Amino acid sequence: MTDIALIEELKTLLEPGKVLTDAASLDAYGKDWTKHFAPAPLAIAFPKSIEQVQAVVRWANQHRVGLVPSGGRTGLSAAAVAANGEVVVAFDYMNRILDFDPLDRTVRCQPGVVTQQLQAFAEEKGLYYPVDFASAGSSQIGGNIGTNAGGIKVIRYGMTRNWVAGLKVVTGKGDLLELNRDLIKNATGYDMRQLFIGAEGTLGFVVEATMRLDRQPTNLTAMVLGTPDFDSIMPVLHAFQDKLDLTAFEFFSDKALAKVLARGDVPAPFETDCPFYALLEFEATTDERADQALATFEHCVEQGWVLDGVMSQSAQQLQNLWKLREYISETISHWTPYKNDISVTVSRVPAFLKDIDAIVAANYPDFEVVWFGHIGDGNLHLNILKPDDLGKDEFFAKCATVNRWVFETVEKYNGSISAEHGVGMTKRDYLGYSRSAEEIAYMKAVKAVFDPNGIMNPGKIFAP
Amino acid sequence: MTDIALIEELKTLLEPGKVLTDAASLDAYGKDWTKHFAPAPLAIAFPKSIEQVQAVVRWANQHRVGLVPSGGRTGLSAAAVAANGEVVVAFDYMNRILDFDPLDRTVRCQPGVVTQQLQAFAEEKGLYYPVDFASAGSSQIGGNIGTNAGGIKVIRYGMTRNWVAGLKVVTGKGDLLELNRDLIKNATGYDMRQLFIGAEGTLGFVVEATMRLDRQPTNLTAMVLGTPDFDSIMPVLHAFQDKLDLTAFEFFSDKALAKVLARGDVPAPFETDCPFYALLEFEATTDERADQALATFEHCVEQGWVLDGVMSQSAQQLQNLWKLREYISETISHWTPYKNDISVTVSRVPAFLKDIDAIVAANYPDFEVVWFGHIGDGNLHLNILKPDDLGKDEFFAKCATVNRWVFETVEKYNGSISAEHGVGMTKRDYLGYSRSAEEIAYMKAVKAVFDPNGIMNPGKIFAP
Repeated sequence: MTDIALIEELKTLLEPGKVLTDAASLDAYGKDWTKHFAPAPLAIAFPKSIEQVQAVVRWANQHRVGLVPSGGRTGLSAAAVAANGEVVVAFDYMNRILDFDPLDRTVRCQPGVVTQQLQAFAEEKGLYYPVDFASAGSSQIGGNIGTNAGGIKVIRYGMTRNWVAGLKVVTGKGDLLELNRDLIKNATGYDMRQLFIGAEGTLGFVVEATMRLDRQPTNLTAMVLGTPDFDSIMPVLHAFQDKLDLTAFEFFSDKALAKVLARGDVPAPFETDCPFYALLEFEATTDERADQALATFEHCVEQGWVLDGVMSQSAQQLQNLWKLREYISETISHWTPYKNDISVTVSRVPAFLKDIDAIVAANYPDFEVVWFGHIGDGNLHLNILKPDDLGKDEFFAKCATVNRWVFETVEKYNGSISAEHGVGMTKRDYLGYSRSAEEIAYMKAVKAVFDPNGIMNPGKIFAP
Repeated sequence: MTDIALIEELKTLLEPGKVLTDAASLDAYGKDWTKHFAPAPLAIAFPKSIEQVQAVVRWANQHRVGLVPSGGRTGLSAAAVAANGEVVVAFDYMNRILDFDPLDRTVRCQPGVVTQQLQAFAEEKGLYYPVDFASAGSSQIGGNIGTNAGGIKVIRYGMTRNWVAGLKVVTGKGDLLELNRDLIKNATGYDMRQLFIGAEGTLGFVVEATMRLDRQPTNLTAMVLGTPDFDSIMPVLHAFQDKLDLTAFEFFSDKALAKVLARGDVPAPFETDCPFYALLEFEATTDERADQALATFEHCVEQGWVLDGVMSQSAQQLQNLWKLREYISETISHWTPYKNDISVTVSRVPAFLKDIDAIVAANYPDFEVVWFGHIGDGNLHLNILKPDDLGKDEFFAKCATVNRWVFETVEKYNGSISAEHGVGMTKRDYLGYSRSAEEIAYMKAVKAVFDPNGIMNPGKIFAP
């Protein structure tokens, strides 16, 4: 069948005007935030119901057309890129909150609900949706589930996985499965809901999700602490974790802070210059809690782990302290950073970080390395900035070499080559550094169960 | 090959004396706490290493011998019963704690580590393993993972699933997989660790597990509250959840309480007779928290939801209040109860419970129904006591009819026929009430990926 005939048939499955093929739409919906790959989709389909999603999947199986799920397209691993004539299935018209139960504290959502929309809805109801990250204003729940999105509150609240009470999915065969029925306890065989979380759309589409909400946090309070070296960060984490239920524990280097302060729109946390900084957050539910935090701070100073520090006294100060961390990514984007999103267990972080630093310093002494990340979860964002006098092509060629070393070091420390961004196309060829050949073979066999014709997000996670 | 030759070959794979075939061992290791099925294993194998487990699995594939994983054999669904000439693989000699990391708060365990052993180890280290239930003194970590064990603290801490940082498994094909590398964040494809949790040993053996620990709870405090009817339990749950992070919310009926009090070894919580009771627990970290609990109690009394109540003032009183709930199961076992372990979403509990009560009352007015359970999770334990004048056979025949009605009602409310006990053999024929035909077909196909010859715990979850 010709492409034109295919598109005409596809149109009969959806509402009028809900298949787009104009150049602007193909370009916009054919890529995510990675932008490494030229988008080349066949068409963009906008289903408005579960039945329409099923019809598209059956059509795709019949004609062996690849389908690429598209949410907010804020992904950083090219999992939502259609570069090979696939049909993009976009959930922009399945974006309603369908149901809310205050006793279960659950919200039933269509996949196109934007993360911030769910957060705001929870707040209206006096509750809290705790998964939060920089792209929450655009990312969609379906995409969050597909990538098991993490972010800045994982240390307390876990990943998106923890908040999925139930899922409706359409498999790559077109079957509609209702997984887990939104139950807390359900010991009736394999929890296939878990398989679809983090599967990057390679097994099927998430077409509905029941998300759990939590109580709202009370009087969130942040501290920024400066440490004399990286090794001091870990005992500080340990000391505070012993005393308080932390809601966040982030870190960044002096280089990251300097670049953010140079913007001129955020005040410095304190005068003392320190090579590393920790940002931690907790609920100051009572004065006693705040006192415990201050006592722990003093203990850390006495131990020589902390040189200086500050604690937020208002919502405004809380926000300002968070900006020191949250603005890093955007600020350093001007230096064309080579980015990596890696993790090891928390205990291995110091040695791992030193190894990577040494490798980069020995081989590329002129490269500036900016570290930051969710240190409480062992998740590090490694950023190498392009020297001004180096051409872009040469820089990225050198980074490809660095990539190999970084992943070899990840493997040595039994870590993950993708902590929270997913595999997509960008990490596909490196999967072997984090998963064994046997594991990958089993994963492919599991995929074949749900998507025997390989129509679901082809070329993502695994080579096509 | 004859059975004798098979056993001789099996013996060559294990250490001397680590294959038993005497009648007492076959009987003891061939069954779990369900006791409905006559044990008839071929032999009991005691591996001492992962390599020996792999050797046994390869041998079983070669000869098409079924393997039944055996932990503490405290299960209530006959998932650890060998009734058809299987080899029982018991982990009694793989029962060591291998490693502990204070910063990661993780413990690496062999599968035969007993739950209480892990709890005690955590306490020694100033930490806490929060999964707890009546059989913690015998159940093993491998079995807990196989059944995704729940218990009395799920409302705060979740099921066993939440505490598994990483797993080593030997699949039904004999491959050793190291799943998740103990990482908090790891977005590198399907999280197959999740598949093995709750799989009841039908995909392979858990041969090592890294379990997470939590900080120790502070000043745990319990309240027992009497309510005028079942419908009042839910607003009480809601009111307390709004104010406090509950660590437990259990309920029981007056009939359950009366039977426990009749033992004579536990004091009554208070004088007022009430038809239903809630037991809740929280951390009274500060006086303010305890005051909030009392204020919420008073609010509940004003609203007419609570008739009387008591709050523990010491560790001894905390224990005594918990005994009111914990002794129920053992106490009512004298009345040969027909037991069911079912769940619905929390919001549906009142209507569901009324439906079941009405069905039993209309058809068997002489049956005494004792309700108790983890109401904060929607998990109800339905117990029907045998009238003294009814024969055991007739009682169980009538219960089989009740069973059907209960499961039809579970299906109507979109609930689970097994909240935390698993499917095993006892719920196998009823699986269709909680999982669709399509889901079951996918589950079977997933099993075939990991266990193509069907040697792993045959006849469990699915008919053989």
